[in-house]
Parts: sequence; structure tokens; C-alpha cells
Amino acid sequence: MSEKKKTTIVLFSGDYDKAMAAYIIANGAAAYDHEVTIFHTFWGLNALRKENAEPIKKGFLENMFGKMMPKGADKMGLSKMNFAGMGPKMIKKVIKKHNAMTLPQLIEMAQEQDVKLVSCTMTMDLLGLDEKELLDGIEYAGVAAYLGDASEGNVNLFI
Amino acid sequence: MSEKKKTTIVLFSGDYDKAMAAYIIANGAAAYDHEVTIFHTFWGLNALRKENAEPIKKGFLENMFGKMMPKGADKMGLSKMNFAGMGPKMIKKVIKKHNAMTLPQLIEMAQEQDVKLVSCTMTMDLLGLDEKELLDGIEYAGVAAYLGDASEGNVNLFI
Amino acid sequence: MSEKKKTTIVLFSGDYDKAMAAYIIANGAAAYDHEVTIFHTFWGLNALRKENAEPIKKGFLENMFGKMMPKGADKMGLSKMNFAGMGPKMIKKVIKKHNAMTLPQLIEMAQEQDVKLVSCTMTMDLLGLDEKELLDGIEYAGVAAYLGDASEGNVNLFI
Repeated sequence: MSEKKKTTIVLFSGDYDKAMAAYIIANGAAAYDHEVTIFHTFWGLNALRKENAEPIKKGFLENMFGKMMPKGADKMGLSKMNFAGMGPKMIKKVIKKHNAMTLPQLIEMAQEQDVKLVSCTMTMDLLGLDEKELLDGIEYAGVAAYLGDASEGNVNLFI
Repeated sequence: MSEKKKTTIVLFSGDYDKAMAAYIIANGAAAYDHEVTIFHTFWGLNALRKENAEPIKKGFLENMFGKMMPKGADKMGLSKMNFAGMGPKMIKKVIKKHNAMTLPQLIEMAQEQDVKLVSCTMTMDLLGLDEKELLDGIEYAGVAAYLGDASEGNVNLFI
Repeated sequence: MSEKKKTTIVLFSGDYDKAMAAYIIANGAAAYDHEVTIFHTFWGLNALRKENAEPIKKGFLENMFGKMMPKGADKMGLSKMNFAGMGPKMIKKVIKKHNAMTLPQLIEMAQEQDVKLVSCTMTMDLLGLDEKELLDGIEYAGVAAYLGDASEGNVNLFI
């Protein structure tokens, strides 16, 4: 058993700002040498979608979900003050102005720091998402694997 | 003191999808032999309401809350893409199609697995909910009892 | 190192009801002699804003954020059933009727109980909030300080 501290985050939310918070905490924990896992479930899976994945044959409902949900981190809306898409633009502007990192940059940094990015297989099944539509280098698992990590975690959050 | 691992979840949200996530994690943890508590507070209490409870005499505000809030798990909306009730129908369809469990089924399973379902007494008081309106076999407690469980918990989540 | 139990809460949400839940748990934990930290980030910072702070010179975007976001705990909306501001009025009425505490009262109580209220400096920078606009007696820190507290915490929640 490792002596490292462990941090796990369930990212349920598909909101840009909540995902930012999740990845900022994850990157911080990784910088302090924690073993970090982000388990993406439900709408949180959208953060892992590729912007330009090849279209995949799906059933009607799965196709509808696929079309209606944001394709990747950069397309996600805000939990508050979304203003039909104006809010994310404002946030991205202040991020740029203050030399902070956008969500896609935070995800890239997490991958460089070996944060374990997990895609919930049950959600993929329900919403009809395919591995080909998701970022490379991520893992696939279910609630049992999450609980294995979390039950040894020092910091466990649901976002 | 028991040697079992402990998982506690505060279910604050009244959203169908968030409650599903809470109950999926709870059922998973119970299957792995954790002692599991779900503390239902604020809108999360709606998951415990009976669909056809006898009407109860209440004050005006309590009556209004009672009428406006969803009566039971099956009536709850989605946190995202609710589309005036279309979203929950779509989710229930894909759940059925993929042989997954609906929220009422997940709650039943949790009760069979002895997950401790707690109703927050302060919320019941504030929103004017009566024991007769809630599912049988649940417990009633306040924040002190929750903290007692959580401070020994391996996995503590707020959903 | 202290033998006291530790509770940490990340308050991300700017909703009145979610902030109430955070402060009720925090005050409960403090009453049971936990060391308690609430780390206010993103919209959660609004709970710490003074109602009548002197206007401060800001850039255009920061000024807009400042104007659009609620000025202090009493001005925050509900996560559910906000009804264009009617919901908070109803909640405040039932709180008064049942002799429960409003959010500003819960915050005051937390300060009296030495709950550590922290304002996220990264968020202040992004949204253009100044120390002069926030409550007196709070601390200023970043994600590293939060993780230091949380990695020793018995109960860690993200709200």
C-alpha cells in the first residue's frame, strides 16, 4: 500500500466553472504529491469529449443526447450567470487577462501530472458515448473502482 | 467501535440525476460491506416522499412548499436538460433500454441492503413535512447525528 | 499536531440554501469541538461580501461581475424554486416562523465559534473583488492552504 496521500473527485457536473474548480483542486493536490483521481460521471463526462470526434452510429435517444450535450470542455456553460453563453465568454476573458488557465489547459496539465482521469462506464452506456469520442489516455471504470480509491482517500469530493 | 468502512452522503439536491448518483454510490458501498448513511436534507427530502400520502393540515407556507415540491423520487426533475419534464422521460427511457435501475428501484435496493436513510428533522420542520408523508422504515435525526457518522467516515460526500 | 477533529467545507455555490447547509454543518461541527474551515471560492465568495461596501475602481469586466453578483449573504437566491426572488422571501419567512437562523445570523455565529472563514485569492483576482468589499476578520488563501487543511480533515465537503 502506498504512503502517498490520496485525493478523489467525482465530477458529476457539466458546468465549466465547477469543472474548473475540480481541476484546480486536482492539479493542486498532484503538485503536493497526492495520488489524484477524477471520476467523471453523468454530465461531467462532457469535459472529456473530443471537440471533433468522428460521428458514430447510435440509437435515436443516444444520438439526441450526443447532439444536445456540449462537445468537450471548451463548450461547457456556467452554473450561474450563463446568460445564453455570454457568461463563459466573460470568464474566459478574465482568465486570459489574469494569466490564469482555461479548462482545456487545466485538463492538459492534469494529464501531464498523471492525475488519473476516469470515465464512468455506466454513464457511457446510458448516454451512448463511445471511447472514440473521448480524450486519449483516460481510463474506464465503474463505481466499484471509484469506491476502492475513495475509501483510502484523504480528501474525497463530489462536484 | 466497528471495523467496517463507513460511507456517508448528504443528499441536499432534489434532482433526479443527482439522487441517482447518490444512491448508486450508496448501493455500491453497501455491496462492498460499508456501513452507509444517506442524510436527506433540504430538497433531498423529496426523494423520501410517498407519492400518495394522505393530505395533512398545514400552515399556508408549508402547504405551498408541499404542493410545489415533487412528491417522491419518481416526480423529480433533472439538474441539466430538464426541458420541462422531457429530460426525465428520456433518462427513464434509456435506463429501461439499458436494463439499469430507476431512482425508486435504487431506493428500494438501498433499503434492502440496510443503507441507513435519514430524514433531516430541521428541514421537515422548516418545510412542514410530516413523518406520515415519508417512506416507512427511515430514521429521523439532525446535524449532530450526521456529524457523528461522518467524523468516522472513510468516504463523505455532499450531493 | 492537534488532536482535534477537523472539518473543511469548500463553499463554491452562491445559493442561499446551499450556503445555509454549509454554515449549519460548520456550526454543528464547531459545537462538537472540530476545527472548522470554510473555503469560499467562485460564487461562494458572495456570502462574504459586505452589503454596503464603498465602491472601488475596477476594470470593465470586474465592475460588471461586481454589479451582477449578489452583495452579501442576504441577497443570495435559492438553488431551487427561486421564483424571481419569491423563494428566498418564503424561506426567510419559514425560518423566522420556526425560530431558525438566517444565513447572516449563521455566518455571525460561525465567526463567534472561531470557524475559519477563508476567501479564495484566485477568485478575488478573477472576479475583481477587493478585501475592502468583504467581511472583516476573514482570512485570505489559495488552494494549497485548503489542501493542507483538507488532507488532515475527518469530514471534507464540497458544496
